[in-house]
Amino acid sequence: MEALGQEMFGLIAELYPICRSITGNGLRETLRRLQRVVPLTMHEVPTGTQVFDWTIPNEWNIRDAYVKDPTGTRVIDFQQCNLHIVNYSVPVRGQMSLEDLKPHLFTLPEHPEWIPYRTSYYKESWGFCLSHRAYLALAPVEYEVCIDATLAPGHLTYGEYYLEGETADEILVSCHACHPSLCNDNLSGVALVAFLGRELAVLPHRYSYRFLFIPGAIGSITWLCRNEQRISRIKHGLIAACVGDPGNLTYKRSRQGNAEIDRAMAHVLQYSGFPFTLVDFSPYGYDERQFCSPGFDLPVGVLSRTPHGQYAEYHTSADNLDLIRPASLAESLAQVVAALTLLEQNRTFINQNPKCEPQLGRRGLYRAMGGHINPAQAELALLWVLNQSDGSRTLLDIAERSGLPFGAIQEAATLLLDHGLLKEVDLSPASLPLQTIS
Amino acid sequence: MEALGQEMFGLIAELYPICRSITGNGLRETLRRLQRVVPLTMHEVPTGTQVFDWTIPNEWNIRDAYVKDPTGTRVIDFQQCNLHIVNYSVPVRGQMSLEDLKPHLFTLPEHPEWIPYRTSYYKESWGFCLSHRAYLALAPVEYEVCIDATLAPGHLTYGEYYLEGETADEILVSCHACHPSLCNDNLSGVALVAFLGRELAVLPHRYSYRFLFIPGAIGSITWLCRNEQRISRIKHGLIAACVGDPGNLTYKRSRQGNAEIDRAMAHVLQYSGFPFTLVDFSPYGYDERQFCSPGFDLPVGVLSRTPHGQYAEYHTSADNLDLIRPASLAESLAQVVAALTLLEQNRTFINQNPKCEPQLGRRGLYRAMGGHINPAQAELALLWVLNQSDGSRTLLDIAERSGLPFGAIQEAATLLLDHGLLKEVDLSPASLPLQTIS
Amino acid sequence: MEALGQEMFGLIAELYPICRSITGNGLRETLRRLQRVVPLTMHEVPTGTQVFDWTIPNEWNIRDAYVKDPTGTRVIDFQQCNLHIVNYSVPVRGQMSLEDLKPHLFTLPEHPEWIPYRTSYYKESWGFCLSHRAYLALAPVEYEVCIDATLAPGHLTYGEYYLEGETADEILVSCHACHPSLCNDNLSGVALVAFLGRELAVLPHRYSYRFLFIPGAIGSITWLCRNEQRISRIKHGLIAACVGDPGNLTYKRSRQGNAEIDRAMAHVLQYSGFPFTLVDFSPYGYDERQFCSPGFDLPVGVLSRTPHGQYAEYHTSADNLDLIRPASLAESLAQVVAALTLLEQNRTFINQNPKCEPQLGRRGLYRAMGGHINPAQAELALLWVLNQSDGSRTLLDIAERSGLPFGAIQEAATLLLDHGLLKEVDLSPASLPLQTIS
Repeated sequence: MEALGQEMFGLIAELYPICRSITGNGLRETLRRLQRVVPLTMHEVPTGTQVFDWTIPNEWNIRDAYVKDPTGTRVIDFQQCNLHIVNYSVPVRGQMSLEDLKPHLFTLPEHPEWIPYRTSYYKESWGFCLSHRAYLALAPVEYEVCIDATLAPGHLTYGEYYLEGETADEILVSCHACHPSLCNDNLSGVALVAFLGRELAVLPHRYSYRFLFIPGAIGSITWLCRNEQRISRIKHGLIAACVGDPGNLTYKRSRQGNAEIDRAMAHVLQYSGFPFTLVDFSPYGYDERQFCSPGFDLPVGVLSRTPHGQYAEYHTSADNLDLIRPASLAESLAQVVAALTLLEQNRTFINQNPKCEPQLGRRGLYRAMGGHINPAQAELALLWVLNQSDGSRTLLDIAERSGLPFGAIQEAATLLLDHGLLKEVDLSPASLPLQTIS
Repeated sequence: MEALGQEMFGLIAELYPICRSITGNGLRETLRRLQRVVPLTMHEVPTGTQVFDWTIPNEWNIRDAYVKDPTGTRVIDFQQCNLHIVNYSVPVRGQMSLEDLKPHLFTLPEHPEWIPYRTSYYKESWGFCLSHRAYLALAPVEYEVCIDATLAPGHLTYGEYYLEGETADEILVSCHACHPSLCNDNLSGVALVAFLGRELAVLPHRYSYRFLFIPGAIGSITWLCRNEQRISRIKHGLIAACVGDPGNLTYKRSRQGNAEIDRAMAHVLQYSGFPFTLVDFSPYGYDERQFCSPGFDLPVGVLSRTPHGQYAEYHTSADNLDLIRPASLAESLAQVVAALTLLEQNRTFINQNPKCEPQLGRRGLYRAMGGHINPAQAELALLWVLNQSDGSRTLLDIAERSGLPFGAIQEAATLLLDHGLLKEVDLSPASLPLQTIS
Repeated sequence: MEALGQEMFGLIAELYPICRSITGNGLRETLRRLQRVVPLTMHEVPTGTQVFDWTIPNEWNIRDAYVKDPTGTRVIDFQQCNLHIVNYSVPVRGQMSLEDLKPHLFTLPEHPEWIPYRTSYYKESWGFCLSHRAYLALAPVEYEVCIDATLAPGHLTYGEYYLEGETADEILVSCHACHPSLCNDNLSGVALVAFLGRELAVLPHRYSYRFLFIPGAIGSITWLCRNEQRISRIKHGLIAACVGDPGNLTYKRSRQGNAEIDRAMAHVLQYSGFPFTLVDFSPYGYDERQFCSPGFDLPVGVLSRTPHGQYAEYHTSADNLDLIRPASLAESLAQVVAALTLLEQNRTFINQNPKCEPQLGRRGLYRAMGGHINPAQAELALLWVLNQSDGSRTLLDIAERSGLPFGAIQEAATLLLDHGLLKEVDLSPASLPLQTIS
């Protein structure tokens, strides 16, 4: 686990310097490097394509940007930190006074050493972000301003990795990959999804998995628009964002509020041994805004450690490699794997001996000698599974009602199944093999 | 608001001296004076009329009543305070010893200065109420007792003001107007309903309003009996009682418990900035006993400040002008107006762009620059309305789920409606224009 | 009540010395002595009979058992205490060293003076239980071991007392009667059920009652298997176990969780004036494991004082006559009687005057004089019953909603019924007289 955390951290360190945006070569390069971890497919959608209420914007690429003082010194320099440029700034080249420049400068007076992160995707504009300390040091002189960028027809790029399972039912795992040099938000999420894909590929899985590496908002809108026909296959979904900081884990429920993924994450976190927080859905945040829009209402939740906007470094230059920890990354991934494993194993059974208990002792499933004070957890789990398996309750239902961990319930079910005392009930029509209508 | 409180107080002061009862001229005079505030109609229902299980009783009118000692001094004098007479006392004239008189005297030993309020509407009886101090001072002499009253066939009188709205759906607002010189219970309620009628008449309103000024119990029974055919039009209802004292507001839920009026009042009180109390329905209290009887089960709640029976002055001479405050009256009225405004505006919409978010920025509804920590409340409200408006949720549902004030949700809905992003769903068949079957 | 507690205690003292098991003469003798209290019928089911997944085992009878040291002293002696023998031990006779004997010896090191209770019903085995102190004193010598028992085809015996009521709907009351010299678990339950049967026989009752005195697990399985056709008649059920110790009462809900018996017991305990505990169903415990198996899912709860496994003396020689109290036994019985009385009286009515309140004063049901602060509880109960009796709510529903004791609600209903203001709604098809199809 520690090795995995280090590997995730290494990937983030490698991706950190790249200047990403919602389109452009930074995003492409990021996806290409991710292909070393998971065999994702890159999709290119042309500028101008209509995606529901939105239009794919011009592609943005930037080579250089600076503000030079009369001595030729770069007082603001994109090469030093790509956050210095307002993301999606239009090209600019010229001389201007400090007074004229000021409306284009953005700082964080409450954190005078940090550079803020600002964007202007859908309104043509330009600007520079800098530390408030540097801002206050600007002399009232004439500056040379250069933004060597292009904003022109091109493509929106996203990455997708489909991992086929035994059934066509899908679990969607998504992250936004559009932020420039910001680690927790969201290179941590990108790393989690990539390594999750790599790990799951070598495990048996009933479900098919779809991993998305997309620009925020426009990316999920684009994906949903292009995949509307297959959306009914999505049974569960999860977004990973801000999963590398040392804070406790936070799970934000889907719009449905009590979807199976919501209950699975809550159960896993409850037994994780770590403090955690559950928060209700709200339509502000990440791509759950789109996945949980009323026309889709997909059961998609969000896993974070400290949620966006609740840590001071959020959307500033202080969201750097110092903010994240290999151990935090690994633990976040471990909890996601645990929740997905739960979903994989969350089946519904029907007790084949529903009238009174079956004689477990005769089958070697129960200790022979009576009179003891308390049964072992494994015995209790057998009794719970038998008692509750009337065909209407999943193993997670039983775990929740019994107060026992899902793992104990699942092991009991396996044992009972092996002894012919349970039979699986397949409640999901979608998990049947797809039929071709000829 | 302060001026309105003073006006309400002034009306109460004017009505205070009148000796009201469940029938008779005191009630008529009260209704006539109220006509200066709202154009109410007076209805007269003859004695002997059957109203469900009840019969309209004889009409009671009183001119004078006293107990004189041998010196001719009125030791109990109706002219001093109309609470001195047990309301609905039969006529009496004669001489009697203190011993014979005592069974007809009522006092409050625990509040020796106060005169209690007692009634005997449905059993022929008579009596005097007096302070315990005065009672103890009565000498063991022969007294002249006189109750110059008539109890004879006549009418039960009530006032009704119908304010037509855009639809035939009605909101019922009711108060009992049968108590003699008692201010909080319930001249405060009478004043609130009268001024509410005056205020709403000049505001736009979808709903039609019906304001009732009725004698307690027999009045609501009579009204329900005479209006049985139109009762299905009543969508919401509220009773105002004890709304003038300085205590905190208390809302008593309807029998339904979670009716729209119950939720509207709870929401409004929650955002009022004042402490308040919500209490569950019980079949004891005011005319909710009738409106919420199982044969009607109307969604009618009760707004009070300190509820009946929970303040020492209740049903005593101490419930006088000193107990009530213009500011309390005005605030009570303000909260009722707020709740009714909420009901007026509580519509259901369907998002016209349900798949993903619409691009709000393009429409000028969302700030152009991204990267900020938290959205403004107005932006959050837009997102909530869009996310929840699937045609099944009212704006109040959305306000409750989002934790935002109804006003913010309502403004967001209006803005989205103006931009064609919402369409109203009319769920109420009764709000359609009434059709004439020819 | 005190006399009844003494009688129950006396019965327990009489039954205490008998060596019971799940079959055999000790159980038979116990049932025969119970016949002096209730006219129960003894049923005999032959060894080898298949009952669902189980088979009636060989019958076990024991005459003597001991371990003698070389001096002929019985160092372990069944005659001293029948717990010394592992219940259902196979016959043994021979010499053996301490070393060979040890695997057959069971002690409780944490309670060195107590003898544990152990059983081996379904796996042929043998053993002795003894105090840890005695165990440590055993010299490393050769012992004579004797278990003079028979384990051979015979019968399983159980007792059943059917008390016919006005309807064929049944209430099942069950206890396990298979434990040897153990008082709280479960001679206390046996005594409660026996005396309950005696008490109910002389009270009027709508329901028919079925009292079971059965060996644990195999007894309820056997009874359910032999009575499958009539199980649909069981409307409520209760198991009594561990009801004699001085701890507070504990009610364990049925699998259904909110069955009428669950609510009745909760209501009765709430008004008992004693502290109590409610616990959720779990499939470990007593015969609720069988009655609440998914193929039956009967509404059967369990009343205990300190539940099994939560007192140190449980399943040890310390569960003797010193552990139980006549007052505890009597109070347990009293609460069961109260709950069953509630079920007997828990009817559903429909208000015959549903539109507004009926005029109670005219019928003498309400005080004539008005103006008082608070109504009496009896008046409140009348109003609640009238308000809630729309044909869908039982009296227990009304008691729960009103916060009034069931007794007050029930008395109000009786009064209203007498005045023709209520009519009973019979919601239970099974409570109709049984028809013979000819």
